[in-house]
Amino acid sequence: MSMASLTLTELNAADTAGFVRLLHGIYEHSPWIAERAASHRPFHTLAQLRQALVHVVQTATREEQLGLIRAHPELAGKVAIAGSLTAESTDEQSRAGLTHCSPQEFATLQQLNADYNARFGWPFILAVRGPRSLGLARAEIIATFQRRLQAHPDAELQECLRNIHRIAEIRLADRFDQQPLLGRQVLQWADELAAHSEPPWSERGELTVTYLTDAHRACAAQLMQWMRDCGFDEVHLDAVGNVVARYEGTQPDAPALLTGSHYDTVRNAGRHDGRLGIFTVMAAVRELSTSGARLNRSIELVAFAEEEGQRFAATFLGSSALVGGFDPAWLDQLDAAGITLRQAMQHAGLPATMEAIAALRRDPAQYLGFVEVHIEQGPVLAQAGLPLGVVTSINGSRRFIGQVQGVASHAGTTPMSRRRDAACAVAEWALQVERRAAQDGDSVATIGQLAVPGGSINVVPGRCDFSLDVRAPSDAQRDRLADDLLLALADICDRRGLQHHITETLRAAAAPSAHTLQQRWEQAVADLGLPVLRLPSGAGHDAMKLHQAMPQAMLFVRGGNDGISHNPLETVTDDDAQLAVEAFLRWLDLIDEDIR
Amino acid sequence: MSMASLTLTELNAADTAGFVRLLHGIYEHSPWIAERAASHRPFHTLAQLRQALVHVVQTATREEQLGLIRAHPELAGKVAIAGSLTAESTDEQSRAGLTHCSPQEFATLQQLNADYNARFGWPFILAVRGPRSLGLARAEIIATFQRRLQAHPDAELQECLRNIHRIAEIRLADRFDQQPLLGRQVLQWADELAAHSEPPWSERGELTVTYLTDAHRACAAQLMQWMRDCGFDEVHLDAVGNVVARYEGTQPDAPALLTGSHYDTVRNAGRHDGRLGIFTVMAAVRELSTSGARLNRSIELVAFAEEEGQRFAATFLGSSALVGGFDPAWLDQLDAAGITLRQAMQHAGLPATMEAIAALRRDPAQYLGFVEVHIEQGPVLAQAGLPLGVVTSINGSRRFIGQVQGVASHAGTTPMSRRRDAACAVAEWALQVERRAAQDGDSVATIGQLAVPGGSINVVPGRCDFSLDVRAPSDAQRDRLADDLLLALADICDRRGLQHHITETLRAAAAPSAHTLQQRWEQAVADLGLPVLRLPSGAGHDAMKLHQAMPQAMLFVRGGNDGISHNPLETVTDDDAQLAVEAFLRWLDLIDEDIR
Repeated sequence: MSMASLTLTELNAADTAGFVRLLHGIYEHSPWIAERAASHRPFHTLAQLRQALVHVVQTATREEQLGLIRAHPELAGKVAIAGSLTAESTDEQSRAGLTHCSPQEFATLQQLNADYNARFGWPFILAVRGPRSLGLARAEIIATFQRRLQAHPDAELQECLRNIHRIAEIRLADRFDQQPLLGRQVLQWADELAAHSEPPWSERGELTVTYLTDAHRACAAQLMQWMRDCGFDEVHLDAVGNVVARYEGTQPDAPALLTGSHYDTVRNAGRHDGRLGIFTVMAAVRELSTSGARLNRSIELVAFAEEEGQRFAATFLGSSALVGGFDPAWLDQLDAAGITLRQAMQHAGLPATMEAIAALRRDPAQYLGFVEVHIEQGPVLAQAGLPLGVVTSINGSRRFIGQVQGVASHAGTTPMSRRRDAACAVAEWALQVERRAAQDGDSVATIGQLAVPGGSINVVPGRCDFSLDVRAPSDAQRDRLADDLLLALADICDRRGLQHHITETLRAAAAPSAHTLQQRWEQAVADLGLPVLRLPSGAGHDAMKLHQAMPQAMLFVRGGNDGISHNPLETVTDDDAQLAVEAFLRWLDLIDEDIR
Repeated sequence: MSMASLTLTELNAADTAGFVRLLHGIYEHSPWIAERAASHRPFHTLAQLRQALVHVVQTATREEQLGLIRAHPELAGKVAIAGSLTAESTDEQSRAGLTHCSPQEFATLQQLNADYNARFGWPFILAVRGPRSLGLARAEIIATFQRRLQAHPDAELQECLRNIHRIAEIRLADRFDQQPLLGRQVLQWADELAAHSEPPWSERGELTVTYLTDAHRACAAQLMQWMRDCGFDEVHLDAVGNVVARYEGTQPDAPALLTGSHYDTVRNAGRHDGRLGIFTVMAAVRELSTSGARLNRSIELVAFAEEEGQRFAATFLGSSALVGGFDPAWLDQLDAAGITLRQAMQHAGLPATMEAIAALRRDPAQYLGFVEVHIEQGPVLAQAGLPLGVVTSINGSRRFIGQVQGVASHAGTTPMSRRRDAACAVAEWALQVERRAAQDGDSVATIGQLAVPGGSINVVPGRCDFSLDVRAPSDAQRDRLADDLLLALADICDRRGLQHHITETLRAAAAPSAHTLQQRWEQAVADLGLPVLRLPSGAGHDAMKLHQAMPQAMLFVRGGNDGISHNPLETVTDDDAQLAVEAFLRWLDLIDEDIR
């Protein structure tokens, strides 16, 4: 395309027909989308325009949605039906190398196209330029195709629509010549840091960085270098391996802003869990520093060394140290190789004394609070079609393991009325768990482990083992839920004449967001032209630890692939990362205004 | 007690007070039982009297039942409360050696008494004279005590009542001087045959007899000897190892009666599964032969060599040969040691040719039909308080294995409304399976295997594996049930947005009992003074194979310990075995009358 860049001013000024014409080709052969979005003008930000278009598709009929999907060509389609393959589409497939397939790849794609169409009745849609807009590798495209061929039709329809919106987002960035450069920088850092990983490496680039391994220390060194490059005034490695950087404010007495997230990972991890919250702040500070801007308050960024609990039993090692919660007994914990945490620290050149660790404790009086940007690690934002969400609380949780004991008996000779079937009791309970948790709206309860040990096809289950995980935004809500579920289990077992045992294995307090900090996040998101979605965090985060010492509030960023995390399929787009940096910059502005 | 033997004539003639007095001490300190049973006179058989007493207790209030239980002394009680320990009770505890406990045994029993009372609030009741009325070993008593301490209170209350009825039964046999000698002979044979078992033997006398092992061949030799001793005219071992015995009738042209059951066992088996159906017929023929009685028809008893499918993959090897269903390919099946079935036959001195095996096929025209007496292997008779039951059909069955696939996701971050929880779908289905099977009354359906493979406490189940076993008295009923369940699973998965796969792994046809043969069983049971309970057989039996060639009908005998089978806890009492022999003799009479 050789048009001059489009502007929002032009779009807002056009009549409806003009508006539709200006957005021609953003959504494939579907002018009705722009037509319906026209009435939502004026648009103040590109994000706002994108959201309006998404909203039109979300509120369209299923037939219209299917029509939109079917307006797209097949991937690497053999025959471009006249008028079907747009210039954009050709360009995108070419960037992904789909115009240069090997005969085998081509055959594979044709078979996948046929299988997919037979299963779903529409063409496979994939934003082949990918999360960084640079184009996916052909192997990646084929793997995604194969994976999605297994999905449920309802879920796959939504995934196609999400890919269509992503395609539109990339086309809009081109049309407006507004590339998400800050976001791309964030993703670039994520990719580069992922080069450091522990063995064994898989062919697909498995990422594993656990506490104080060589890969972990290489990450710390790299982060320190990058932070200095970003313009932080002071950068150092602390006694537990946290990378700490300060960008000083103009008013030394003003309470500083503490922020950050962790740089360790789970095994075979994604690239954004934890790290996104470090890079977002780095990109923001680089923006400030490049333009010579200083806030009233200082910004203190901490890249926490350990959150995931992968190498040693203890978790949140990095943030615990900041709130004086580092248990001296942890120093004697052993990793799988029999190395103590103390030895690991010494090997890494850390002091490995409780004196040095205790000194990391922050004085809450010197801080306004803690904020953390994090990938959602769940499907809420993806399914709502929103890039950002404001966290209301980090859920409190309780975990249990248990078993129901009935009587194992012959599946053929024991009448239904004479059974003491342990599995049926757990089944009845599982449905009550599901229903009761859903009642709260924002609670969750999960039976993740479920088994009839040594079960036989012809034996009525005499025993059934299970786990239960309960989470809710407040401890009171969590406990009401857990209490109801335990009572329900007792009732079921009593009525069915079974015995049961259940043991609590974990109890963690909820960490509700601080009102003011959360409100500023909401304002920042709204100022970007985005609807404000509030949600609790189901997973634990460093902010949960900091909550013990100071106010905290988190911002969530949408994850791709339905929000999957702790998995190499974890993704964030450049556009969403861009919005995260912009939101953080806006948040800094708002919070700094309070004392301006 | 030094009374003269009681007679039914005396009992029937007495006034109510006299009746109660004559039955004093049969039920411990509970004259109300005899009082209420008095109105059910006249009693024509001791079994009928026993059943009337059982019925009174079954229809009593829970408080009355508890009163009856609490009227019993503690086992090996330290202090005999005045008027509490009856002469019968003292005698029984003494026979079980409880008056000669070691200090350690005594301490164990006192602790068990205390724990039991704390858990249930009543004393532990055990018919310490056991199934053969001879007295249980102290170790056996302690093991039973420990096992029952784990039971559900409702189930344990019923088990106490059943033991009280068994105590009463033994006391009545003494009072009437009517010892169940035929039944005791049956149990004696069962005990003696159980001396032959394959290694490894456990200390508790594990019983395992699989096809053509040394133990198996020793059993065959022993059976042949016993059958000759019982007065059978001809006894031989056939080409597949069945022991076949004929007791000739007076009319050579009259179709003969084929009967029998199997003498092989599962691993760590009980002593009665299969064998009871051999010994019952042996005891009956011994009665006939001792008195020189001959029927019009010949009786052909087959002790089938193989039914359980433990050593080789094929099952029903013995009965298959009689209906021409022995598959030549079976000869090449291997056991765990790599020995072919053919080699095993040769080693046992059998011809091991299909010619010899095919010659075993019976001509249906020469037989009236096949009947089989078998332990129920289920809880129906035990829970109904009835010694015998008439089988209406051997249930047809279908088996399936399957899995539901959802999406594994973070238990904390995936809202309840966004889950695709595979385990919850199977849970919902399990309840429908339970409910739908119960609707039929005599169908059963079981999910015996259930697992979330690799499930984690904090991950929403992405997959759930299961099995399904469906059985019903007719193929049509079985198929309606199976079809409904498969549809229900598809509906659930569809509604929940999940995928599922299910594969049928077995389909066996139902074998309904032949009307006339079944009716004669009903008459025989009624003639003993017992209520007629009809029930389907949930398990497969040799009769199912014979069904392919001729009419068949089965009689079930109550199993103790809630009907447990394929387990060393399998038991039959001497009184029940007695009734089985008497019923078989009566059945012979009735069926022979047809041509008299």
